[in-house]
This record gives sequence, C-alpha cells and structure tokens, in this order.
Amino acid sequence: MNAEASIAVFDSGVGGLTVLAHLVEHFKNENFIYLGDSARLPYGDKSPETIRKYVEQNIQFLKNKSIKAVVVACNSASTVIMNEQGLNDIPLFNVIGPGARKAQATTRNNIIGVIGTQATIRRRAYAEKLLELDASLTVDQMACPLLVPFAEQALFDDPITALIVHRYVQPLKEKGMDTLILGCTHYPLLIGPIRRVCGAGIALIDSGDAVTDDLQLAMNTGQIKANPGAHSRRIQILMTDLSEQATDLAHTILKGHSFEGPFAVDIT
Amino acid sequence: MNAEASIAVFDSGVGGLTVLAHLVEHFKNENFIYLGDSARLPYGDKSPETIRKYVEQNIQFLKNKSIKAVVVACNSASTVIMNEQGLNDIPLFNVIGPGARKAQATTRNNIIGVIGTQATIRRRAYAEKLLELDASLTVDQMACPLLVPFAEQALFDDPITALIVHRYVQPLKEKGMDTLILGCTHYPLLIGPIRRVCGAGIALIDSGDAVTDDLQLAMNTGQIKANPGAHSRRIQILMTDLSEQATDLAHTILKGHSFEGPFAVDIT
Repeated sequence: MNAEASIAVFDSGVGGLTVLAHLVEHFKNENFIYLGDSARLPYGDKSPETIRKYVEQNIQFLKNKSIKAVVVACNSASTVIMNEQGLNDIPLFNVIGPGARKAQATTRNNIIGVIGTQATIRRRAYAEKLLELDASLTVDQMACPLLVPFAEQALFDDPITALIVHRYVQPLKEKGMDTLILGCTHYPLLIGPIRRVCGAGIALIDSGDAVTDDLQLAMNTGQIKANPGAHSRRIQILMTDLSEQATDLAHTILKGHSFEGPFAVDIT
Repeated sequence: MNAEASIAVFDSGVGGLTVLAHLVEHFKNENFIYLGDSARLPYGDKSPETIRKYVEQNIQFLKNKSIKAVVVACNSASTVIMNEQGLNDIPLFNVIGPGARKAQATTRNNIIGVIGTQATIRRRAYAEKLLELDASLTVDQMACPLLVPFAEQALFDDPITALIVHRYVQPLKEKGMDTLILGCTHYPLLIGPIRRVCGAGIALIDSGDAVTDDLQLAMNTGQIKANPGAHSRRIQILMTDLSEQATDLAHTILKGHSFEGPFAVDIT
C-alpha cells in the first residue's frame, strides 16, 4: 500500500461531498478522489439488489485508481455493504457504524432518533447497530424520501422544506429523543430547518463527521499509512453525470478547498 | 412486421404507465410491453448525454422482444430523441409532437404554458415544437423538478404537494395561459392539485392522451399493422428496479386491466 495513494470517497451524488469536506479538513496531507454516481441517483428509493450492483461497479472503478481506502459516504450504500471488510488489501469504511457509536456515546436519556432514506430505514441499519451496542436503547426511525430531492434542489432554507422537515422530524421529537442521527449525507445541507424543528435540546449526529474518527483510528493503528505530505495534495471530483447544479453544490460544500473537477466519467 | 407483435412503451419509471393506461384503453386488441427504467430514475435532472445513453440501451433491450412500435412515454427521453425517425423498421413515437399539436389546436388566446422536468424545459422541447406550428404563439415554461418525487411518493392530494404545485403553476397562470401542457408523464397523477391552481378556465393537455391519436393515425395509414385480435391480449410490465411502491402504483394506474408483472429485468 502506497502512503501517497488517495483516500477514495463515493456517494450516489453530491451529498457525500459533506463527508469529503470533513475529511479534507481533518486530513490536510491526504489526497482524495471523490466519485458521485449522479447518473443513477438517488439510491435511497431503490432495492438492495440494485444498490449492491451499483456499489460493486463503483468500487471496481475506484480500484483502478491508486487508492488506499474506500469511504462509502452514502448511507443507503453503506447499508448493503456494512458487513463486508474490504476488497483485497483496501480497507472499506462505511458511515453507519461510526454514526451509531457517536449517537450511543452522546445520548443521556437513551432515546435515539434516526432519519434516512427508505433503503436505510427499511434495512434498520442504524437501529440494529445501536441495539448491538446497547440493547436498552430506544430507537425511533423515520424514512424521509423527499429530503434528498429538496437538498439536491438547494432549497436549504425554503418554507416548503421547513414543512416537509417538520412532518418527518416532529413525530420523532414527540417520542422524546435527545439525539438524532442524520442518516443520509444530504441531510447536513438541511441542518437549518432540522435544527429549527429539534430546538437546542437535541444533539444532531452527522455520520460524515463520525467516519473521520474511524479513519484517524485506522491511521493510528497502521491499517492505513498516513501520507507524509510535503507536496501539495490533490482533491479530484468525478461524477457519472455532470449538471450545473452539482458543480455549484460542489463549490458551496467544499468552499475554501481547491479541487480538480467535477469531471464526467462513465463507469458502466 | 408482425401484426400480433407488441407495442412497446418505455419510461424512466412508473409515470409512463399513465400513457400505457390511455393506450390499452384505446387499443383493445393490441399486446403491450412496458419497460420502466426505475433503477436509473429520474431522468429529468440528468444531462442529455446520459439520457441518450439510457434511451439507446432501453430501445436495444426492447428490440430483442417481438415489437412493432416504440412509444417513448418519458418527456425527458422524448426530448433527446425527438428528431429521430425510428430503428430499422420499427417506428418510434414520442410524446412531444402530439402534446404540442393538441395544445395548439386547443388554445384560443394563443398563450400556452408548459410544465416539465429540468431536461425537458432546458431543451425547450415543447416551446420549439409549438413555435414551429405557429410562430405567433406565446409559450411560458416552468421547470418543476420536485413534482416527480412527490408523484413517486403517491402524495397526490397532500397539502405540501398543493403548495409546491402552486409555486410552479401560479406564475404561469398569472401570465395568462388558457392551455397548459403537462409535459411529464408523472403529472397526470397530480391532476387534482394542478386543476385546483388552474381553475376551470385552463385546458390541461395530457401528452399521453395525445400520443394515442398519433398511433391511431399510424394504424389508419398502415405504418403499423393493427392486431386482428380474437385471442386475449397480453400486457407485460417490466421494471429495472422493483419496489413495492412501484407495484402499488402500477395497480392504481392500470386498475381494471389485467397485466403480467411487474417483473424485474436487468438491461445493463
């Protein structure tokens, strides 16, 4: 494994750029390659079989680059591959485990809410992981299929977004959660309306933030070699479908970091 | 060309079933095969290059079945192939031309509104076709990227759907249209809230309804051979991704018609 190899991050679209933003901020010497599978977005409404096929194609594509780790930044994709260890010598990270552990460490009243896509909620990905950590937890889930479209439209602070967020999140609040897992990488883009429904008393867990800790641990234990640095690092963004909107969102989310792309790639 | 061959209909998902419903109702002796490319849905936010690739793969898949015509029931897909005549001996029908002609025949004040996906509106598909028919028409367009997600969630009569429909359609109403083209096959599912914004004074043009007339004409002129009938006809529904929701919607839209499927197929 080459220390200068990139950390690969992939997602169904631009949502995973919120995860990439955490990683590039924390790992200042590392090279990154981001793959957004926007041509087949969204994953969250699709069946596990279809999502698995897409994930395998994406990982296959990334393995042909010089990479030392793969971060599956999409919760729906993480859900279908969460019990897999890696591919050949390349360690695989998903966002479910880190998000669940952080939520369990945060809650005081042992009631945790989870919002996610239909795929993530149906598979009970966070719920199972949380109950594995502590069987006494109460986990309340809510599938929020319309939040990804609103986030993709960049309607972050729109009154209609506020209404749809209220519809999804208020029932969880009424059940008493003190901690809410944002179980989709698009949701940090909607943090404004989510925070307004939750108020100050509910901790919001961003699973993209949580996976950063897992990667740091993997570097500390030598599972991934840290890049010694010195040279200026590269951040490349690849998308399977290129739209102006996606390009704008990339610049918004990664503001302050210079990157190459987004470039269009064909992976099928 | 075999008279008993099927008429193929394809769309990015279940929306095109509204077109299929018109066709099966009108052509009672014909066999139909429907392909919904739900694994890559929605098309409307994607680039013309990506949409074209998907359309070619879908048509290639359908050509391997016994078919005598292809109806491209997706407006976003029709937009990228509208100037193509067909494939080998199989005539190709799109929804843009029929919808535009029907709108032009309907308007009295020569102001026509068009709602559609981002792909359809950006390419000005209906606008160009309408101005070709009559250069004195005024055409007001509005991209409605959130309507497909609301329709796919079956939120047909929801107060939040009403708000989002109002936001998209009210500005067109204020510009004076007397005719509105529903330029996406999902929109007839939202006819309730659209009608409530438009009131009784605006004619709503369903392009799926309009394409039926084109097929009838092609049969009358012998471009397509009509099925002599006698045997009970077959309606097969194939989807590239199967979800419970899609299955439920198929039963809702095609109620009263017996069909086989939906069955999952893999076309890539």
